[in-house]
Amino acid sequence: MATARLEIAYVGTRFAGWAAQPGERTVQAELESALGRILGERVLLTVAGRTDAGVHATAQVASFEHARELTDRLAERLNAVLPRDVAVLAAEPAPDGFDARRDARSRTYRYRVLASRIRQPFEEGRALWWRHPIDRELLDRCAAAVVGKHDFTAFTPTDTEHTLFHRTVIACEWADERPGLPAMRVEAPSFMRNQVRVLVGTMLEVAGGRRSVDEFRALLEGAPRDRAGETAPPHGLYLVEVTY
Amino acid sequence: MATARLEIAYVGTRFAGWAAQPGERTVQAELESALGRILGERVLLTVAGRTDAGVHATAQVASFEHARELTDRLAERLNAVLPRDVAVLAAEPAPDGFDARRDARSRTYRYRVLASRIRQPFEEGRALWWRHPIDRELLDRCAAAVVGKHDFTAFTPTDTEHTLFHRTVIACEWADERPGLPAMRVEAPSFMRNQVRVLVGTMLEVAGGRRSVDEFRALLEGAPRDRAGETAPPHGLYLVEVTY
Repeated sequence: MATARLEIAYVGTRFAGWAAQPGERTVQAELESALGRILGERVLLTVAGRTDAGVHATAQVASFEHARELTDRLAERLNAVLPRDVAVLAAEPAPDGFDARRDARSRTYRYRVLASRIRQPFEEGRALWWRHPIDRELLDRCAAAVVGKHDFTAFTPTDTEHTLFHRTVIACEWADERPGLPAMRVEAPSFMRNQVRVLVGTMLEVAGGRRSVDEFRALLEGAPRDRAGETAPPHGLYLVEVTY
Repeated sequence: MATARLEIAYVGTRFAGWAAQPGERTVQAELESALGRILGERVLLTVAGRTDAGVHATAQVASFEHARELTDRLAERLNAVLPRDVAVLAAEPAPDGFDARRDARSRTYRYRVLASRIRQPFEEGRALWWRHPIDRELLDRCAAAVVGKHDFTAFTPTDTEHTLFHRTVIACEWADERPGLPAMRVEAPSFMRNQVRVLVGTMLEVAGGRRSVDEFRALLEGAPRDRAGETAPPHGLYLVEVTY
């Protein structure tokens, strides 16, 4: 068996997430079906970052083992049969045994917020529309507080499969993609379920004056889930980079 | 009667264009229906640039006459009842007799091209996906040739309501929005039907080596329609500015 690596982009809106589930339209199922058609063999994808329903990816990475030779111009052939909301950006041989999930050194997510009283049709489903006031400096202070090793119990659902709740955040910062569209970039070796979305939901409460930065900081020491804020919706979230 | 002015953005994908037509979903009909609900009177919109089916707008301008007072925070109220693919960016009183179409000094369009062998899901319906080679310098030379007063007969359908075929292009230039995504910006007091799309379709033939810049230049002197290239599809086109 040889190993291959895919880089993938998808608009999450009409997917029930990455992971194949019976009866649901998922990114994994669409890709495995396209790979089966083009390669003539059934393959199973291992993914760097499982994304939930509605979450986007601009550079997801997946790996698979295959018995037959890879087809020439595999990415283009896959794209010709894939639906329009997902595309393979690159498809290439990988070192034997390469595992997109296990070998990833870090994942980077981006969360986009349209901070405006006015809707923007081109950001529909692509950024969280936030009509409330945002103090940008408070977002920056929250982001700075997140960097480092913390107990993120407050930032993942109580009903969890995680057993370890400490995570080390390598980088976290807000920057304005353009005026009125702040976006948070956060990089870590691994994340817990919903972690980025609960972080953003809670930071927005701080930025609106509904809780203090000190309260936010205290949540990073293993506070229970119900002390943190709401889970920001999936459609502002993008998996943007995986490093190996 | 008082006069009001709207600035409007819409994703053209699911609209049969601007102009109201029986049985079709149009931007004008959606807006006039929303205005009727919020203002409590029936109004008729006059628009700066009638866009065809599938064409987008980031800053369309329309005007209307009204008998009752404008509602406070009219833009926000309209957006609350409008569908998600259209929004009013601003709604405000205008000088008596202001006419969004007649008073416009120039319209600016943008045409976006994804120049790549690989599809990009986030550009689906928002840029023309062009897989063929593009010589960027040839695009620049075509754009420079378009500036000034020319007979654009070759760039509008033969079956036409236009009677004058000369137009004066104030500015025309290609710039890379990001690597691999060239976009053309073109400004003129007025355009003929399909003019920007036939210009782009023909320029792409030049940029791919299928005709010369000299041939392109010759088309600007009143050549018949069948001498120019194909009409580029609507989904790459955006009305981006109207000046008064």
